[in-house]
Amino acid sequence: MNYIKNRSNAPIGVFDSGLGGLTVVREIRRVLPREDIIYFGDLARLPYGIKSERQVIEFSKQNASFLLEKGVKALVVACNTSASASLSILKRLYSAPIIDVIVPTAEEALRRTQSGRIGVIGTQATISSGAYEKAIKRVRKNAVIFSNVCSLFVPLVEEGRLSGPIARAVANEYLKDFGKKRIDVIILGCTHYPLLKGVIRGVVGKDVELIDSAPSTVLRLRNELRERGLLAERKRGGLKIFVSDRPRNFIKVGERFLGQKMDSVKLVRL
Amino acid sequence: MNYIKNRSNAPIGVFDSGLGGLTVVREIRRVLPREDIIYFGDLARLPYGIKSERQVIEFSKQNASFLLEKGVKALVVACNTSASASLSILKRLYSAPIIDVIVPTAEEALRRTQSGRIGVIGTQATISSGAYEKAIKRVRKNAVIFSNVCSLFVPLVEEGRLSGPIARAVANEYLKDFGKKRIDVIILGCTHYPLLKGVIRGVVGKDVELIDSAPSTVLRLRNELRERGLLAERKRGGLKIFVSDRPRNFIKVGERFLGQKMDSVKLVRL
Repeated sequence: MNYIKNRSNAPIGVFDSGLGGLTVVREIRRVLPREDIIYFGDLARLPYGIKSERQVIEFSKQNASFLLEKGVKALVVACNTSASASLSILKRLYSAPIIDVIVPTAEEALRRTQSGRIGVIGTQATISSGAYEKAIKRVRKNAVIFSNVCSLFVPLVEEGRLSGPIARAVANEYLKDFGKKRIDVIILGCTHYPLLKGVIRGVVGKDVELIDSAPSTVLRLRNELRERGLLAERKRGGLKIFVSDRPRNFIKVGERFLGQKMDSVKLVRL
Repeated sequence: MNYIKNRSNAPIGVFDSGLGGLTVVREIRRVLPREDIIYFGDLARLPYGIKSERQVIEFSKQNASFLLEKGVKALVVACNTSASASLSILKRLYSAPIIDVIVPTAEEALRRTQSGRIGVIGTQATISSGAYEKAIKRVRKNAVIFSNVCSLFVPLVEEGRLSGPIARAVANEYLKDFGKKRIDVIILGCTHYPLLKGVIRGVVGKDVELIDSAPSTVLRLRNELRERGLLAERKRGGLKIFVSDRPRNFIKVGERFLGQKMDSVKLVRL
């Protein structure tokens, strides 16, 4: 471990199984524009959501090591599946501040709900882990949680089918029962899902609030850095992107998440 | 390389990115019941169809080495994506007979077509490689080929959605244009697709023949073994399955492909 001593101008490390975590990067750049960011997307081994917990933990440890060896001052686990499987292990292993998407998003949902009835959607692995349920119940024991696995949402987004008859049919199938549950917030428990907000809203209606992980996660990150005196002081931070594979269309897909050009992308083998 | 000298009672090695290749294993067990089979499914890194050619070649070499080191007498590349990217490289590297799914299936389609107008469906990687097109044109230059990427078919099968409104909507979206092309055969260019025959037929009608890779691949394998005097002589062969991950539900999904119980499954790390 070459984990370099905290320095406020060191970069923030962000990893995800793929490119969905760039929605979190986009928010960091908006809220904390002075920060340098190093992103790692494990495109060679994605998706994580259908793999075993043991395998996801192994991948997550490798991704974290890669970023920590690059001297990041804090680590954002921008993948719900990774966070749900490995957060406590990563926190035990590494001394750097580690921010996940699950706890901040669960707390945000609790701030927003009136009814205390919360929907959670995510990958097979995230939902099976019960991580959102635990994070919510830790704060409010009597919250009522309805969880749904939405396996086809990730491939839909990767294929760029963000609207149209297939996206609508898939969203309807997964979410039609939510209508009867008197839920007033739904946690989008996967960084791919914000791109499907349109079709999701089409099924659940406009009175249900959709909670995206990025804003609350980045607020948590900002607080954590501020408390530790680690906010960067330079004028404008940069972004370096590392990926473990460069599949066809990955630039197009990545720019959809990031909302800007991906200039510096390097291929690495873990 | 511990590639052991050909012996007729050595096992046949079969690999796939996941469990779809078990449709080929099922056919080997039907046609060549005396053969021992060793199967490897790369569940930790699947799917291959959305990854780069370079990455798929790397994975394929690792999978082939794993099986050859176990002393297999012949290798079946039961993954269309692997075969389309790596077949010539594997054949150059290894001396064992290597049978792929693409060439036998392309030739079978040519035997079946009356019009010479052939549809091919597969993953992004398989279709982009043009492997089916090349294999068909090598035999019949004037064949007319219509290819379609069907990215959502693999996740549909893995989720067990083999029928119902979503499967129908997806199949319709991908295949509706085939109706106008006067195609009389469609190659199912991915070992997952035979499980979707019902919905595919629902869109393309019953006059279009659906060509599944397994039967023609296994006939090719049988001929190859016979010519080399390598057919096994024991009474009844066994099956050993190795996987690089054991995700939730993988036994259920695997048994759907294999058509029988999966008794001996071992986890390995490549």
